[in-house]
Amino acid sequence: MDRRSFLKTSALGGTAAAATTLAAPAYAQGKRTLTMVTTWPRGLAGVWDSVERVVQNVSDITDGQITIDPKGAGELVGAFEVFDAVTSGQADMYHGADYYFTGQHPAFAYFTAVPMGMTAPEIMTWYYGQDGKALHHELGEVFGIRSFIAGQTGAQGGGWFRKEMKTAADFNGLKFRMPGLGGQALSKLGASVQVLPGGEIYQALSTGALDGTEWIGPWSDEKLGLQEVCDYYYPAGFHEPGAALSVATNLDVFEGLTPSQQRAIEVACADAHQHNYSVFIANNGPALERLKSGGTQVLEFSDEIWDAFGQASVEVLQEFTSDDLFKKIHDSAQKSMRESGQWLSVSDGKYSAERNRVLAALQ
Amino acid sequence: MDRRSFLKTSALGGTAAAATTLAAPAYAQGKRTLTMVTTWPRGLAGVWDSVERVVQNVSDITDGQITIDPKGAGELVGAFEVFDAVTSGQADMYHGADYYFTGQHPAFAYFTAVPMGMTAPEIMTWYYGQDGKALHHELGEVFGIRSFIAGQTGAQGGGWFRKEMKTAADFNGLKFRMPGLGGQALSKLGASVQVLPGGEIYQALSTGALDGTEWIGPWSDEKLGLQEVCDYYYPAGFHEPGAALSVATNLDVFEGLTPSQQRAIEVACADAHQHNYSVFIANNGPALERLKSGGTQVLEFSDEIWDAFGQASVEVLQEFTSDDLFKKIHDSAQKSMRESGQWLSVSDGKYSAERNRVLAALQ
Repeated sequence: MDRRSFLKTSALGGTAAAATTLAAPAYAQGKRTLTMVTTWPRGLAGVWDSVERVVQNVSDITDGQITIDPKGAGELVGAFEVFDAVTSGQADMYHGADYYFTGQHPAFAYFTAVPMGMTAPEIMTWYYGQDGKALHHELGEVFGIRSFIAGQTGAQGGGWFRKEMKTAADFNGLKFRMPGLGGQALSKLGASVQVLPGGEIYQALSTGALDGTEWIGPWSDEKLGLQEVCDYYYPAGFHEPGAALSVATNLDVFEGLTPSQQRAIEVACADAHQHNYSVFIANNGPALERLKSGGTQVLEFSDEIWDAFGQASVEVLQEFTSDDLFKKIHDSAQKSMRESGQWLSVSDGKYSAERNRVLAALQ
Repeated sequence: MDRRSFLKTSALGGTAAAATTLAAPAYAQGKRTLTMVTTWPRGLAGVWDSVERVVQNVSDITDGQITIDPKGAGELVGAFEVFDAVTSGQADMYHGADYYFTGQHPAFAYFTAVPMGMTAPEIMTWYYGQDGKALHHELGEVFGIRSFIAGQTGAQGGGWFRKEMKTAADFNGLKFRMPGLGGQALSKLGASVQVLPGGEIYQALSTGALDGTEWIGPWSDEKLGLQEVCDYYYPAGFHEPGAALSVATNLDVFEGLTPSQQRAIEVACADAHQHNYSVFIANNGPALERLKSGGTQVLEFSDEIWDAFGQASVEVLQEFTSDDLFKKIHDSAQKSMRESGQWLSVSDGKYSAERNRVLAALQ
């Protein structure tokens, strides 16, 4: 699985090959179907739109030379088996959230979301305008995959609660659903953090097995019916301020494609990232309004709670920096975030606050 | 030039044609070069990156079947002549800011920027996730073009001033450079609004012919040297809260391409929109820090000034709503902006403010 070690041990063979005359690469001729396994139930609102966008884009712009056959979770392999399926060559590519694979390498978290990390516009900035994409490739090559972000949920909501959260101490002992590094941070506040699949959350809240949960955002949360079992919703959360989804292709398969087909996959994924973001934001706005009209109390965490979120998140991320590649990616992302975050705050942030205030007053 | 009128008058011929058996469209075979005229001096920082991204994307993903030959302003036609060049067939496509063409139709403003309008993430939401793209096509078809947004500067700065702006009354009599509908709004505050090309701004500020100016953002503004002739910078402005750039192709040329080539242009443009945004944001953050270090005073307009900006902007936009197509596009964009703006404010906006505060305190 560690491709880098493999490459090191075969360095002699590599040198010998390089000394011969370079032949043109042998690309597969004719039409080709690539099997894509996914971490999603087929048709899951929002994220499956991103799968379909990638599939359609690639088929269209390669004029049918490349067809992608997407499989829902469990159809070929289970949701969390897609990484191994692609690195082993059982499947050609996966579509999923890379932070499911922090067991393989903790730095995969940075290509979905980390707590107190980047918003979607900041992810775009780091990924497409700075080092993010190259670092994603560097990380993927360790495992023999070529990765591109290809979907984006935007900021995930702070979550649903059955009581108002007034201080950080209110999280002590709270039975709360939150996966990933955000969940690790929340457990530092004393929460009893649990990870349940989406289909089990409603029931757990109904029976009191859970005191609260995060899920995705108003659009997706409303579909789960969370407003029926929790009265309090906090739209702003610390754990996934922007969440990218990725497509990763087995590196041997990717390198067997023509340069034009490789670029078609890259551009198809970039389009899907932007498109999927727009779909989530387009749906979250009206859903939030419906939730408010239906009686959900929409609240904000206090500064004191945000202080606790921040301290815990920094600690969790710091624990992984002994790994050189994690530290390299962490340092790059944090530097980018500080720089772009500062500009976006004084431009977009200030503008949006004033515009919303002024237009509301003029209505 | 009015394609819709043309289509109406030829309705009889159209009906006759439709009654015959539909033949497969006759696509041009073989490699093809499309001439792209632009509204930009060749190589202009930021916006020319978007031109190059579109050109490279299309060449790559069509495997060289379509090559775009981009021309700087003045090489084939002047900057503001590109619209006529493409609608007349003199050139195949243009890359430019559609708000240069409000003389052709005022609704083109909505596909670059309108005062007190959408930020870049809100533009993405409306354009890709709702009706924006379809409305862009509807507007373009009136003139015989197929349009896609293909570049994005992000929020343009509020501008540079030689004195601090404390109240809306300070704009009365101010000699200020601001093009477009934003300039029309500012003139309602009594400003003497002027429109100068970028190359003449520095000199006009040096001699006192101008009291202040907006340009693009910290990265581009620094290159013009505006920090040398103005002490005060307002990062948040009302006039172009997100500014899209567009590629428009002559509709007959576009319809002569294969469906795969048409989609290649569409996806290439979408990728360029996101990529260009990331390039601007990546560069604006560090540039703002350099400006501060160099002694520029970075300030915010007061609520009272924002109130005046808002009132004037709403009045300017309202003046065009007697045109049906403008009103249709205006209503769609304003509805989308209110919905997505509300969600982005309570999620991303709240999150970013808290994160920036907490992380600064932890450093």
